[in-house]
Amino acid sequence: MSDDFFRAYLKSKAGLSDEALNELKSTYSVKNYNKGDLIKAQGDYSSIYFVQNGLLRLFGVDENAKEHILQFAPEGWWITDRTGLYQSQNSKFNIDAYEESSAIQIDVSFFEKASCMSSNFQKFSEKILHNHIENLYSRVYLLIGTPVKERYLNFIKTYSGLYQRIPQWMIASYLGVTPEGLSRVRKTLYDLS
Amino acid sequence: MSDDFFRAYLKSKAGLSDEALNELKSTYSVKNYNKGDLIKAQGDYSSIYFVQNGLLRLFGVDENAKEHILQFAPEGWWITDRTGLYQSQNSKFNIDAYEESSAIQIDVSFFEKASCMSSNFQKFSEKILHNHIENLYSRVYLLIGTPVKERYLNFIKTYSGLYQRIPQWMIASYLGVTPEGLSRVRKTLYDLS
Repeated sequence: MSDDFFRAYLKSKAGLSDEALNELKSTYSVKNYNKGDLIKAQGDYSSIYFVQNGLLRLFGVDENAKEHILQFAPEGWWITDRTGLYQSQNSKFNIDAYEESSAIQIDVSFFEKASCMSSNFQKFSEKILHNHIENLYSRVYLLIGTPVKERYLNFIKTYSGLYQRIPQWMIASYLGVTPEGLSRVRKTLYDLS
Repeated sequence: MSDDFFRAYLKSKAGLSDEALNELKSTYSVKNYNKGDLIKAQGDYSSIYFVQNGLLRLFGVDENAKEHILQFAPEGWWITDRTGLYQSQNSKFNIDAYEESSAIQIDVSFFEKASCMSSNFQKFSEKILHNHIENLYSRVYLLIGTPVKERYLNFIKTYSGLYQRIPQWMIASYLGVTPEGLSRVRKTLYDLS
């Protein structure tokens, strides 16, 4: 697959020109993954990924080999393990492809170069970083301060349509609840509607 | 109280000179708070705070007027509600002083100006931002993937000595657990040791 989706996204959202995108080509590459491919193992150097189609996941694995899902990234989402991105220490989490996917693997230098080329891109880049922090704060608040029902409704709002593409246990993992707990909440919601 | 602690911190950690700090004086001010003072209410424009002494808290309040604590900031910590910092939308959380405190209230422009003045400061500023994101990821992982005991031990490691300055219900709130749940875990730990 080509980088067409990525280029169209950056032209429309970040105001990058075709010339700028051509100059940046050496800092990213198109990758195609099969369902189940491990893209980045814990401890690897981390790139940033932009999903063109399919679905990537960021997750940790505990001592009992149980997966805990930190983020899903369907089409048009960015995903990375920031714990390994700017630190010399090893990264903590894994990224894999849950569906057959096409993603852009981006080097950190892409952001530095593009920010120098375009103040619009710099603003866009700051905005996605701060949105990201805001989303993490909201996620922590949902986890410590809200019942599972509210977390589930927020998940459906955040990841429109995704609940039809993944098994319930993965949603439960993302929400920090047992599959049985999620099942009870879903039953309440469907009984009410 | 003066800004001595803040200046010494920035000289030592971020390599800012006395001249640079003097030029930056218009972008921050020293604030003294009494125990219980509300520093920033939900919806207010948000500054960044650096704690010189005492203890500030970042927290949300739910529909039942129950507090949920997102962050503690003792001496030498930064604290802000980023949801209101770079967005036009209203901020979601509150900041108050849990102890009599002295803090530096800092405008966003401080970071822009200091980054232009010193590449060391720019690197320092990037480092604290990325550490912050890493800590939020780790916090989410602890909340979705680890038992309360591990979360409590992580809290004690992160906030050395703080557990002696705040009531148990606040630690429970931060850990996303009931006070009874935390009490059971503490009992297990003390029985074992």
